[in-house]
Amino acid sequence: MTTSSDAYRRAGVDIESGNLTARMIRSAVESTHGPEVLTRSGLFSGAYALDDHRVLVASADSVGTKVRLAAALGRNSSVGIDLVNHCANDILTTGATPIFFLDYFASSRLVPEVVAEVMEGVAAACREAGCALLGGETAELPGLYAPGEYDLAGFIVGVVERDRMLDGTRVRAGDALVALPSSGPHTNGFSLVNRILTDGGERELTPESVAEHDRELGGSLADALLAPHRSYVRELLPLVHDGRVKGVAHITGGGISDNLPRMLPEGLGAVVDTSTWELPPVFRWIQELGGVSRAEMFHVFNVGVGAIVAVSPEDVEGVVRDLGGAWVIGEVVSGGQ
Amino acid sequence: MTTSSDAYRRAGVDIESGNLTARMIRSAVESTHGPEVLTRSGLFSGAYALDDHRVLVASADSVGTKVRLAAALGRNSSVGIDLVNHCANDILTTGATPIFFLDYFASSRLVPEVVAEVMEGVAAACREAGCALLGGETAELPGLYAPGEYDLAGFIVGVVERDRMLDGTRVRAGDALVALPSSGPHTNGFSLVNRILTDGGERELTPESVAEHDRELGGSLADALLAPHRSYVRELLPLVHDGRVKGVAHITGGGISDNLPRMLPEGLGAVVDTSTWELPPVFRWIQELGGVSRAEMFHVFNVGVGAIVAVSPEDVEGVVRDLGGAWVIGEVVSGGQ
Repeated sequence: MTTSSDAYRRAGVDIESGNLTARMIRSAVESTHGPEVLTRSGLFSGAYALDDHRVLVASADSVGTKVRLAAALGRNSSVGIDLVNHCANDILTTGATPIFFLDYFASSRLVPEVVAEVMEGVAAACREAGCALLGGETAELPGLYAPGEYDLAGFIVGVVERDRMLDGTRVRAGDALVALPSSGPHTNGFSLVNRILTDGGERELTPESVAEHDRELGGSLADALLAPHRSYVRELLPLVHDGRVKGVAHITGGGISDNLPRMLPEGLGAVVDTSTWELPPVFRWIQELGGVSRAEMFHVFNVGVGAIVAVSPEDVEGVVRDLGGAWVIGEVVSGGQ
Repeated sequence: MTTSSDAYRRAGVDIESGNLTARMIRSAVESTHGPEVLTRSGLFSGAYALDDHRVLVASADSVGTKVRLAAALGRNSSVGIDLVNHCANDILTTGATPIFFLDYFASSRLVPEVVAEVMEGVAAACREAGCALLGGETAELPGLYAPGEYDLAGFIVGVVERDRMLDGTRVRAGDALVALPSSGPHTNGFSLVNRILTDGGERELTPESVAEHDRELGGSLADALLAPHRSYVRELLPLVHDGRVKGVAHITGGGISDNLPRMLPEGLGAVVDTSTWELPPVFRWIQELGGVSRAEMFHVFNVGVGAIVAVSPEDVEGVVRDLGGAWVIGEVVSGGQ
């Protein structure tokens, strides 16, 4: 898959600038790392060895500009769910069980009802993931945010036994790659979505302006776009624990091509057969209305694939059966990265 | 101390609205708490019992609108230090040693050099606190932030032995309260400061417009305002470990009157003698230029007091001697809260 990010740049997001930023901060980050830090930069989450047996795994994330759509549609609890599930899936890639979560909510003017709605979503997803909402910060920051906007970030911590941690070393050439469906765009690509919905910033985002597209989609576009980021914790963790799932990639910003390699050790690559599934209707709608190339769709969105796991050939049949809606999407191969 | 927040509300921050929000989210938060969660809502940090012996302590915070001043003055590394030290002090209130930190940086348009400056500050403070910068998220969110603005939040995790955790139960009536000086406003009250510096939003914040006030202050106002949030970890942790410091309050938003009670158990209160120190020049400048009442100064700012610790009477002399610049500010008394 090639990396064309023209439409995304037009939507105001510069992936190259983000990559430059990442390189510039890497040495600062690594200057703080002692032997307790088990992961290199660039993974889904960071791992810290608390002692010889236990590893704490942590991740920070935001919902991105999906919050703009949620705020405009007055449906704020869904982004609370998004936030927790995105973070929980990130640490799931190491096999960690979530233990606690903290949130950060900020706006130029706090609207208590909006904060409460968001936090109800956060709490519901925490209960579902079995993790405690241990704290957080709610900040009123005049002038910092555009009027009516708010931002939402979250931090999760999980724990995993050191000898059961997923770090790529169990993945072998010949392993099958099994895909789990996403529920929609999850929390990526919304700058592009918002740009389409506002005709490039020319129109207001309102419930009515979004509903105008329902006929094209054949259903509620608001529902399709705001469907909460699916959590794979309850489904996948038992298969990680019984050893059948040997690697987990969470498909987020950068799509399959950027995220799948993060679960592979050096020297292994992946072949993905994109004919094994059809882009769900909401992605076809985005592609058509936004005039986005297929290559860029695959680079910005999960295009229907929320997670990909590596499984030994002999376990594929059982794993696909145990995971509702899963399918074999490809194979781990030698070389590649 | 009374709670008058007129000037702060004029600056765009509504403390009452924030309190209402806090009440609305409390039940959602507590619905996620199992027996592992050791702290009630409203403390400086949350505590999670990992096992019978060890407790993880976590806190999330932001630098608030100090980032607006830092961005305007092009001095971005200082807020990176602020962020880590604010969080580290918050978990210090339980006696926890910081182990790792994650950051969240967001802006409508990423400027790699600005991100890199901030992260250098974050990394330097992490090294100083002995904690690993384990991860983070850098997000470009078009339209969400006002042009040229960015926000910065952080999340820290520390560890403390369960039987050494500070939870207020060791504090007694008759204990001395020992104050540690702040380095300036730290990370609170900057919406009000920014309002003063912009004549209520009428003027641009620039290095020159801030420097115009240097004569009134008798020194660099930019230096005084942006002085990094002081970390008390290296000074106080040894005294927590040797048992002489029995309670720690971090004086942040809400000032002494809101934060000091957070380290006291039910049934105990505090008497603070405000004649034991003078407001440092930067706070007198804020009070005078902003037309802020003394009561409100005490409610919005730390007014020179960055932390207050509880110490048995027999240990006071040694503790004051060991902590550079500390002084006895008051006493723990029966009743009160």
